[in-house]
Amino acid sequence: MTANGPKQDPSADSSVDAPVLPVIGILGGTGDQGKGLGYRLALSGLPILIGSRIPERAVVAAAEVGHGATGASNADVAAACDIALVTVPWGGHQALLHEVAEPLAGKIVIDCVNPLGFDKQGSYALSVPEGSAAEQAQAILTNSVVVGAFHNVSAVLLCDRDLESVPCDTLVLGDVRSATDTVLALADRVPGMRGVYAGRLRNAAQVEALTANLISINRRYRCHAGIRVTDLP
Amino acid sequence: MTANGPKQDPSADSSVDAPVLPVIGILGGTGDQGKGLGYRLALSGLPILIGSRIPERAVVAAAEVGHGATGASNADVAAACDIALVTVPWGGHQALLHEVAEPLAGKIVIDCVNPLGFDKQGSYALSVPEGSAAEQAQAILTNSVVVGAFHNVSAVLLCDRDLESVPCDTLVLGDVRSATDTVLALADRVPGMRGVYAGRLRNAAQVEALTANLISINRRYRCHAGIRVTDLP
Repeated sequence: MTANGPKQDPSADSSVDAPVLPVIGILGGTGDQGKGLGYRLALSGLPILIGSRIPERAVVAAAEVGHGATGASNADVAAACDIALVTVPWGGHQALLHEVAEPLAGKIVIDCVNPLGFDKQGSYALSVPEGSAAEQAQAILTNSVVVGAFHNVSAVLLCDRDLESVPCDTLVLGDVRSATDTVLALADRVPGMRGVYAGRLRNAAQVEALTANLISINRRYRCHAGIRVTDLP
Repeated sequence: MTANGPKQDPSADSSVDAPVLPVIGILGGTGDQGKGLGYRLALSGLPILIGSRIPERAVVAAAEVGHGATGASNADVAAACDIALVTVPWGGHQALLHEVAEPLAGKIVIDCVNPLGFDKQGSYALSVPEGSAAEQAQAILTNSVVVGAFHNVSAVLLCDRDLESVPCDTLVLGDVRSATDTVLALADRVPGMRGVYAGRLRNAAQVEALTANLISINRRYRCHAGIRVTDLP
């Protein structure tokens, strides 16, 4: 399933000459991270499907996202999308991926999940047997190509409709160059955001865990921290 | 051991009224990270001692640093400094800290070490039994206060004498507010650099490991990457 439309002008009519736009499925997409990424990617002109365990919730979340987004079950979204984002809470990560492994075969799957624990002293990184959420996803989705991205982007800023741009970088992790290139281009569609290739999947754990540091920074400085990579050409 | 001198004008003569400047000891300081941090902190007007297992090497490194830096054995530097930076390679981390635990008692120790492995696919984070290099340091230096900092700052940029400023942030990790505040102020002495409190010591591992990602970024984009935290007030 794909949607046609020129990349530069999402409002234009589709035509046979126009580049094919990938349908983006956001699995476990009813939280702020999923809705925020859905909103930004929808704004950039991409067709968005929001998935949830409970389809009714996905329909509500898709209505919040607007810009043509529609909601359905995670399984239906996994089947219908060209590229999937995984934004489920860590507690549901493994179960969700087992459920959608078959319909995601052959597709790029972008894991955005941060395995974090929380206590009265704040947040901290959880130990993941596979090394990272992204590596756990790749271990389950043996017929998909998993890329890690969008871990350190503030959901508050993504969802803030008064903000025209989201001025931060997203580190993109993966072992397949064509897939990481696709995700870099996806990140670059969001005004202000820049995708930066930051290594192989084996180096995803610390990028996921860095979100705990950003939460500490937010608490200390009362902000919505993200990161920029310095000295890039 | 302390040196007197006004903070704002390092070239002025010392006087009894001037604030006391802490003597900075850089343990395992003969590599680029140690020499680069030594150079930048010396430039900011602080007295610098470079330590090495082999005192002759420390003397050579201190001469390279210049600006009044002197070299000695790690044990002598640990005894003479007010604040210590640990910039030894990961392989020598544990042994060095056992050697200098006694003279470092009662002092702030800034651990700057990145436990990384390297193979033909690049660098990757090593597993540390204590969680991180900083936590290993705290476990050994039971009478010191350990702070993690300066992990993600390019040694190449630190050492580049044509660069007047080092435009990046350093994430500062620690459990004792007065100590992290001291280290934040230390980072802020370097033009361009900004110290950012980024959580407790239990969240140091991912900051250390993030250096592997920066190495991947450097390789892909041919740069000397660092990070800036966005949205800080």
